[in-house]
Amino acid sequence: MSDQISPLAPRKYPKMPAIKGVRIATAEAGIKYRNRTDLLTMLLDEGTEVAGVFTRSKCPSAPVDYCRENLPGGKARILVVNSGNANAFTGKKGRETTAATGKAAASAAGCKVSEVFQASTGVIGEPLDPAKFTHLLGEMVGQATEDRWLDAAKAIMTTDTYPKVATITVKLGDVDVTINGIAKGAGMIAPDMATMLSFIATDAPIAAPVLQQLLSKGVGATFNSVTVDSDTSTSDTLLLFATGAAAKRGAKRINDPRDPALMPFKRGLNKILKNLALQVVRDGEGARKQVEITVTGARSARSAKRIALSIANSPLVKTAVAGEDANWGRVVMAVGKSGEPADRDLLSIWFGDNRLAHQGERDPNYSEEATSTYMKSDEIRIRADIGIGRGKATVWTCDLTKEYVAINGDYRS
Amino acid sequence: MSDQISPLAPRKYPKMPAIKGVRIATAEAGIKYRNRTDLLTMLLDEGTEVAGVFTRSKCPSAPVDYCRENLPGGKARILVVNSGNANAFTGKKGRETTAATGKAAASAAGCKVSEVFQASTGVIGEPLDPAKFTHLLGEMVGQATEDRWLDAAKAIMTTDTYPKVATITVKLGDVDVTINGIAKGAGMIAPDMATMLSFIATDAPIAAPVLQQLLSKGVGATFNSVTVDSDTSTSDTLLLFATGAAAKRGAKRINDPRDPALMPFKRGLNKILKNLALQVVRDGEGARKQVEITVTGARSARSAKRIALSIANSPLVKTAVAGEDANWGRVVMAVGKSGEPADRDLLSIWFGDNRLAHQGERDPNYSEEATSTYMKSDEIRIRADIGIGRGKATVWTCDLTKEYVAINGDYRS
Repeated sequence: MSDQISPLAPRKYPKMPAIKGVRIATAEAGIKYRNRTDLLTMLLDEGTEVAGVFTRSKCPSAPVDYCRENLPGGKARILVVNSGNANAFTGKKGRETTAATGKAAASAAGCKVSEVFQASTGVIGEPLDPAKFTHLLGEMVGQATEDRWLDAAKAIMTTDTYPKVATITVKLGDVDVTINGIAKGAGMIAPDMATMLSFIATDAPIAAPVLQQLLSKGVGATFNSVTVDSDTSTSDTLLLFATGAAAKRGAKRINDPRDPALMPFKRGLNKILKNLALQVVRDGEGARKQVEITVTGARSARSAKRIALSIANSPLVKTAVAGEDANWGRVVMAVGKSGEPADRDLLSIWFGDNRLAHQGERDPNYSEEATSTYMKSDEIRIRADIGIGRGKATVWTCDLTKEYVAINGDYRS
Repeated sequence: MSDQISPLAPRKYPKMPAIKGVRIATAEAGIKYRNRTDLLTMLLDEGTEVAGVFTRSKCPSAPVDYCRENLPGGKARILVVNSGNANAFTGKKGRETTAATGKAAASAAGCKVSEVFQASTGVIGEPLDPAKFTHLLGEMVGQATEDRWLDAAKAIMTTDTYPKVATITVKLGDVDVTINGIAKGAGMIAPDMATMLSFIATDAPIAAPVLQQLLSKGVGATFNSVTVDSDTSTSDTLLLFATGAAAKRGAKRINDPRDPALMPFKRGLNKILKNLALQVVRDGEGARKQVEITVTGARSARSAKRIALSIANSPLVKTAVAGEDANWGRVVMAVGKSGEPADRDLLSIWFGDNRLAHQGERDPNYSEEATSTYMKSDEIRIRADIGIGRGKATVWTCDLTKEYVAINGDYRS
């Protein structure tokens, strides 16, 4: 946790309602941090279904491997998350730690080890001693309550400057169901996949394969469209739990992803995913501005997204935004370096509503003054129209400041 | 030009000998900078052959287009370079400027417009008025002399903190021939291609197609293996001129790229290319340390280079080096995010001679103290052995400091 809270932090937090079938406890295990919580357990009632999306890193952490093994079972009873140590690149010791954690958690929750999910975040390459926290799990299970979502978000923070929570209530048929989510960033954030930890739970009775389909699709325009520094983490984990508790209140169980009753839930879930993904960007290390980049007129949507990410990941674009400089020449550069089809002489570029470049040249009507004023705002929109097709995509990032360098120049020590 | 010279600047410059058939003049045209030279002309004797390599950007500058058009002719008589304005993304006006410059230069040098080569570096997207400098060309041609290589290097600088020159003399058969080169960086430096301006000249009598083959091959392990910030410029131009003047001293003309007499020249040229490429890295914006990244044991050489560039372009690796922190976990992350074949449990990582990780785990014999001392040096070597094949590659980059952000946060204004 940083001393200084991001200027883009939410002004207030939503009141997080209970999700029937989910109980939460946090503890100070002292794994790395002192005087703060660093351990989270989420107890899930019997029958909870689970879906997940993980990092595409070729060097995933031990907990990611562990979750991937358990995911096909589709059932979850307990989630254990620690911050301060990622248990990544820890070899055989890492696998022993996840095995020991799985066993201790299963014993505490009274479930099978295949119903345990876990995640770790923090330093890479340091062995994580399970003895530091597994002895706490039994007591935590006993103390867990339904009203600790904000505490949960706090316990999983690393360099985040604020906890990230979101909630929405939607209809499933005639019955209200709720979706709660938490997330943490704040560096090593790039798409493929979400490059962060996020845990979402609902009381909706939805079968695991349907959840998986919703989640895999939902991350495309949300968690997989944000980038802080292009660095894909070894530990990215997004889990979605459905306790099904709303069935007791008359909600019908959804087994078919094409069920029309699922639409409001799908929209609600996507809102939560986008909300949390943007909160991660807004807390990007050293971030002072949120940057939304939209590419239109590309050969295809896929091409548009690649161009948008080329702009979003360009250090020169990001430092220009930090310097409140509408340096659209660097946007041209980033379009050009993406390698995607583009015609220089058809390219147009906007910062906010100010069109700076049109069809391959500086816009003659472009106002330096209006644009300079616009660049002072803390939410910057950049749009590039490629002019050769109908492909469109939007991604989000933050500016690159000296604070990013300061934070990452001495994170480990 | 920056006020503060890079701590990695060369302690002294080589004395640049004359290249028979090349005369140089520089001038203060006041295109953007004040009280410094910003215009270079290089006069080339009749019969000079030329080869070139350019940016792979899809949005190349007008001068890049101009050079590409003239390159197939294989003949060059004059090179005109300005700093302060890149004449990139300037549309029809940009083409008018290169046409006017070509015409004025041809008239000044008494040659065809197809024998003119030009390059521009500086801000993107601002129209470049040729009237600002074309009137100077006639006088410059008259004043040009053979001994101004360092002046030439100074005139093309933008955010560079020092001029970059290199020279070597090699045998072509029994005859000494000389290769001189200059280059400029210092941001928007990424491979594909060299992302900078560099001009090399020799008195060796070598046919243009042979020169082209040497140059295209030579950039692979040199200019195309350096990266400062992963941002590919719109303007990258590397030109190689061979005046053939050494023929008068008995050097035989080379028309066959397989001619064994060419070997020492080829090695010499590659040395110059590497020397200049490393000077560019060492003057990377805000750079305090040079970083050499070697990947061994990859599936193929191509795969090794991709992994090496993934490490070299990772902001988290680069900030860790800036912070003198041997954070090898971030190297693991960068290997993982490259998407190239890798097996986490076979990976080993060295900083200098200190092996920090071995076969997927922290090396038990790793000394934090020795490594910390090593990280204080200003040339850092990182090696990652992937352990699955024989592919090998080396790339060079620099650290990412607060100064990079400062330089790029207000470059345009």
